[in-house]
Amino acid sequence: MSSPDIERLITLLAKLPGLGPRSARRGALDLLKRREALLLPLAKAMQDAAENVKTCDICGNLDVQNPCPICSDPKRDISLICVVEDVADLWAMERTRSFKGHYHVLGGVLSALDGISPEDLDIPGLVSRISEGGIAEVILATSATVDGQTTAHYIADRLADSPVVVTGLAHGVPVGGELDYLDDGTITAALKARRVV
Amino acid sequence: MSSPDIERLITLLAKLPGLGPRSARRGALDLLKRREALLLPLAKAMQDAAENVKTCDICGNLDVQNPCPICSDPKRDISLICVVEDVADLWAMERTRSFKGHYHVLGGVLSALDGISPEDLDIPGLVSRISEGGIAEVILATSATVDGQTTAHYIADRLADSPVVVTGLAHGVPVGGELDYLDDGTITAALKARRVV
Repeated sequence: MSSPDIERLITLLAKLPGLGPRSARRGALDLLKRREALLLPLAKAMQDAAENVKTCDICGNLDVQNPCPICSDPKRDISLICVVEDVADLWAMERTRSFKGHYHVLGGVLSALDGISPEDLDIPGLVSRISEGGIAEVILATSATVDGQTTAHYIADRLADSPVVVTGLAHGVPVGGELDYLDDGTITAALKARRVV
Repeated sequence: MSSPDIERLITLLAKLPGLGPRSARRGALDLLKRREALLLPLAKAMQDAAENVKTCDICGNLDVQNPCPICSDPKRDISLICVVEDVADLWAMERTRSFKGHYHVLGGVLSALDGISPEDLDIPGLVSRISEGGIAEVILATSATVDGQTTAHYIADRLADSPVVVTGLAHGVPVGGELDYLDDGTITAALKARRVV
């Protein structure tokens, strides 16, 4: 119906998360209408990103530098490693500006359903970073989902013999959260972890 | 936080319709993880589309050929022009395989609110195609919205002195539509246009 060039653009756009076939079609049309302002700059940005962005050999972050700016920053606390599932989680932590240690990106979570086993995650990299010494604490910041917590427990088990302190993020009421809209598990966790004010 | 190369990719992706800042970030990460399978092919497809896809000088369709395959197809009825708002509407009509005439893409609808006046749409092109003769019928297939219908009325007025028959799409119950979920306007239109079965 439309030409193969346009069809290929639509097919590839539809593979982006959050874009279905219909919005990919709208996106392709929008790109073709804004050729100079959007289509060409985006094609260039993708080419540049493909050429320049690398995975950090130490922590798994994505950046044009390898090791990444976080791993090479001498002002960050090298004795503290925060273990996250994904680069997106690393970015989310960085946006808070409240963590000044290093990271380790697992690249996913253990999942029997999706067939993701420990070998598919960068757990060996984490174990070897710790065995090199100098790490005092490992914060397991995987998601508060079944798979995320399974992964955290698995890593905690693997690190049981090493001298590092293994911690996890606190559960509780999200800032701005209303009790009425929270699930029972969160309220129970927040009750258990209650503090004197 | 993340490198300028990644930030630029996210910023440009966020300009696509249907992608907000968060899904643009997820999209950029997904692209960087699937460099060979998605990022490079998509960059290439965009570059190709920018170079090869042209707007048809006759109807306004987008294709690598100009005039487009529809305008150059000798088997299509050249005496019939279907006026649509956008290339997406042209594609939607083509998907039905039930229209064998030619098209004219307006490039939008009249809208006092968005400041879109007749000069912003390709109405002169339509008028000149009709004044060249050989057109028997013009089907106004703009949306059944206030702006779409205003645009249709405006075009019908402009064509009042020409010998072409000006028609519009029928209103009625959508195929598969339940009465209970339809608005009053549609039911009224369907009642008025009722037919003997």
